[in-house]
Formats: sequence, structure tokens, C-alpha cells
Amino acid sequence: MNAMGKFNIGLVQMSVPDDPGASLRKAVEMVEQAAGIGANVICLPELFRTHYFCQREDPSFFDLAEPVQGPSVNALSKLTAKLGVTVIAPIFEKRAPGLYHNTAAVINPDGLAGIYRKTHIPDDPGFYEKYYFTPGDLGFAAFDTPFGRIGVLVCWDQWYPEAARLTALKGASVIFYPTAIGWHPAEKERFGDAQKEAWRTIQRGHAIANGVYVAAVNRAGFEKPEGSAGLEFWGGSFVAGPFGALMKEASAEHDAVIVAQIDPARIEETRRNWPFLRDRRTDIYGGVTEKFLDKP
Amino acid sequence: MNAMGKFNIGLVQMSVPDDPGASLRKAVEMVEQAAGIGANVICLPELFRTHYFCQREDPSFFDLAEPVQGPSVNALSKLTAKLGVTVIAPIFEKRAPGLYHNTAAVINPDGLAGIYRKTHIPDDPGFYEKYYFTPGDLGFAAFDTPFGRIGVLVCWDQWYPEAARLTALKGASVIFYPTAIGWHPAEKERFGDAQKEAWRTIQRGHAIANGVYVAAVNRAGFEKPEGSAGLEFWGGSFVAGPFGALMKEASAEHDAVIVAQIDPARIEETRRNWPFLRDRRTDIYGGVTEKFLDKP
Repeated sequence: MNAMGKFNIGLVQMSVPDDPGASLRKAVEMVEQAAGIGANVICLPELFRTHYFCQREDPSFFDLAEPVQGPSVNALSKLTAKLGVTVIAPIFEKRAPGLYHNTAAVINPDGLAGIYRKTHIPDDPGFYEKYYFTPGDLGFAAFDTPFGRIGVLVCWDQWYPEAARLTALKGASVIFYPTAIGWHPAEKERFGDAQKEAWRTIQRGHAIANGVYVAAVNRAGFEKPEGSAGLEFWGGSFVAGPFGALMKEASAEHDAVIVAQIDPARIEETRRNWPFLRDRRTDIYGGVTEKFLDKP
Repeated sequence: MNAMGKFNIGLVQMSVPDDPGASLRKAVEMVEQAAGIGANVICLPELFRTHYFCQREDPSFFDLAEPVQGPSVNALSKLTAKLGVTVIAPIFEKRAPGLYHNTAAVINPDGLAGIYRKTHIPDDPGFYEKYYFTPGDLGFAAFDTPFGRIGVLVCWDQWYPEAARLTALKGASVIFYPTAIGWHPAEKERFGDAQKEAWRTIQRGHAIANGVYVAAVNRAGFEKPEGSAGLEFWGGSFVAGPFGALMKEASAEHDAVIVAQIDPARIEETRRNWPFLRDRRTDIYGGVTEKFLDKP
């Protein structure tokens, strides 16, 4: 398999056990399962080691963080070497005392290829991420794997066309979105379908705008800390092709492994027929670096 | 009705008669029809005065162009004054000998509010627009009408997240996309559904990313110049709400008038619950002004 050939991606949608040891064992098993059915680049959900602690602001939860060269990456590096695969491992990164990131490590068979630090940090009732995570300072990136060039963004990034565009312009053929998104129980009946549909639509839109594959890898299961109404992670992990069509989708809100093929020839063909990159008006896009264009 | 209140938009989906006089009369009738059922801001399809001449490269077709202050805008200005509405009139603009644009004029009841010149110009088999149109040099804009602040982009612009973003950042509550998109007869069976679905999806994505309404206003009908296989314009004009849900959609490929309500309170509510504008990382978006980020 060479850098310009086809390869298979694996999406691990999982509920996360309370115990970080158990969650690592579960992730390892599901990565092995994905590799067993042919996946070459396998992505775990956002913050896969722990329950989604951002439902509350509690300083003790910073104890859950670990350095990039820590237990998760070390354990998974052994696994990628053994299986000959690449794993995208989203961790709670401790960079320095008082400095933490929501980070995805890209681990090739021969070791760490690099990291991406989530740049867009949400903060909404039940998703208090600004308390925990410093916005990423590494910009957007694509990573070379033995199978192809891939991009990684994390969860809230998925609502930002700029993030997808810049990752695609770095040469990624597929953008992974490890995610932890779910419903507030009180909102699900009224808004649940619309929320999930918007989430799917905007990411399919990124695939179309950029002529890249998109792989959204969500957490599953219901997590309810004491004193909270809890969050029901909606699963629904999917792969969209470079013109936005759904190729694979996890059918329900439980554990699932999805495998789909990335074909660079299909990217070439799509972009040749829909040559959006050719006509970008980079001379007049400067305003995107402003918050709002309300100056007279 | 004040600038912060609700207002109604009208989408005129129409097939275009061969004769520019007949097309103007038809447009006037359909604008009257839209106004009669409550529309305040009414949008015609791209290049509504003429058949879609870009199916061929023929210098005689430049004769179809007219100045902004020309017959179309003059006639429609009388109409907007009479009806008390705003009309978005997409014309083939003659700016100077040898300098032509694909332009949308925004005409308020008291006269021309401004123009937008299509910035992204396609060129594909059957859509030879680069031959006819100089890329717009006015950038992106929003226009004040007596009913609300609106944005206008044209057709191929609809595939570019940057265009929607910059128009939304100018304060538009709704982005209109007058359009002339259709199927090649030979492609329709195999690719038709996927093309229309991608077209709808990416524009719904712009609504979601920006928390704005989106109104796509397409041409209808089959146009077949001599020696060409023709184009079947697919209609399908629609309005999406600020979280991307379809509110109204023309059900088939024929003439139709759609009216939908724009509610600034719904934009406020959507953006409050999904505060994407708050978290844009304008400090690291500079790369969007590059064609590709392949520098080492």
C-alpha cells in the first residue's frame, strides 16, 4: 500500500466505562476488531479514556489529564506497532501545571506522527470545556501515515468551515472528527432530530466544499454525574464521501465499528468535475480573520 | 415593519422565455404574484432576462448585456415603488466595452440599494462563464432594505463557505442565491440526485455555520441551443432556517413562487444556543487567503 493508494479507515464508536483502565482495554479491543476487518487508520472518540467530565467544573478532574507521551499514547503505540495500523487517540493533555488541552494524537505503526490540539473550545450548559481546555496553539494540520495523508479536528471544530478548509488545504484526503456530542434529556424530544441532522449536514457540507472524505466518530451511551440531568451521546458516527454522500453510518446509539474505503482517485475525479479549489477568491477572503465586519 | 422585525421573502423560480421582453414581463408578473401573497423581498433567478447563453462561447451574446442603470433595473424600480417591495434582479452587466459582470441589483421601493458582482466564476462543459464574466471586484456585501438586512451571492458562490461567512459577518439575516444550475441530460440519471443533494446540503451547511436563513432561487426548464445537448435546470428552490432545516422547497422543476418568513428572533435564539460566532479562531484563519498550504 503506498501513499497514493486506497486505504481503509475505521471508526470506533463507543460508550466509555467509568474506569480509565477499563476504557483503555475496551478501546484496544475495538481497535483490534477494526484492524481485523481491514481498517488501516482507526479513530477513537474524543477524550476516550474518561467519562465526559466537562458536564461539571471540578478542579479534581484535572487529575485525569496526562502528557502526550503518557500512558494512553504509550499503550496504543505498542498496539499500532503490533497491528501495523495508525490510531488517532484523543486524550486530555497535560502540558504543564495549569495548562491543559483537548488533544488528538496520531500514532503510526512506527510511533507518534504528531498531535492536533482542539482549537475551537465550546462552553454551553453541560459542556463546560472552556474551564478545562486551553484553545489549541498548533493551528490546523495534516499528518502523513503509511496509508495516506489525513487530517484531524475535534468535535466543536466540526461547526467551523474554516477548520475544514485549512485542514484540506494542508493536503488531507480525509478529515476525522473525534467527537462527544449528545442530547440533554429534556431537549431530546423537541430538538433531538434537528440537532443531529444539523450536525450531520454541516460536516457533509465540509466534505463537499473541500472534496475530501469526512469521518465523524462519536461517543455513545448515557452519562449522568451526580446532581446533573446527564447527557445522552447520540452515536451516529458516519463517513461521507468527497461529494458529501453518506457512505456508512452507525445505525443507533451504541458501540459500533465502521470501516470505509478512502480512494484518492475518487477525490481526484470529484474535484475535477467540481473544481471549487480552482476558483477560490483568495484575494478577497481576508475578512475571515475578523470577528464581525461591522466597521463602516 | 421595522428593520428588526419579521419580514417575508419571495423566491421566483421560473423558466426563461427566449425573448428578453417576454422574460421581463414574466418576471414582473411573478413578482406581483409574490407581493400579492405577502412577500417583502423578492428574488429572481440568475440572469433572469435571457436564456442561459453560457452554454456556448459566442461573442454576439455580449449584446445581451446592459448597464446597471439599464432597462431591467429601470423597469423593476418602477415595480418596487408601486408594490412597496424590494427586488433582487440578477442581470448581465455591461460595465464598459469588453468588461462584463454577472451582477445582482438590489432594488428597494425608493430605488437601487446597491449591486453585488458574482465573485466565483465557474467554467465547466456547458457553463462557460469565464468567457463572459469578469470576477466581481466589489467583495461581499449586505444591503439594508426597509424590511431587514440581506445578503446576495450568485450561483457558483454557493459552493464557497468563505462567501457565506463574509456575507453573514456583514450582518445579513438571509443570504439569497439566485442560481442557474441544471443537469446535463446524459448525466442526470446517474448523477442527478447526488448533484442536487450536494447543492442543497452545502447551502444548508452555510445556514448552520452562520446562523442565517438561506434562500436558493433557481431557474427552471430545459434550454437547448443548436448543436448542444442542452441543460435541464433543476428548480428545487428552497429556504433553509438558521439551523439548516428546510422550511420551504419548490416541489418540482417548473415555475413556482415560494414565500417564507424571516424572523430575527429565531436567528438570535439559534446563535445563542449554538454560539459558533463566539468561538471563531480568527487568529489562525489567515491561511484561507492561500490557494493551497503546501509550503514546507
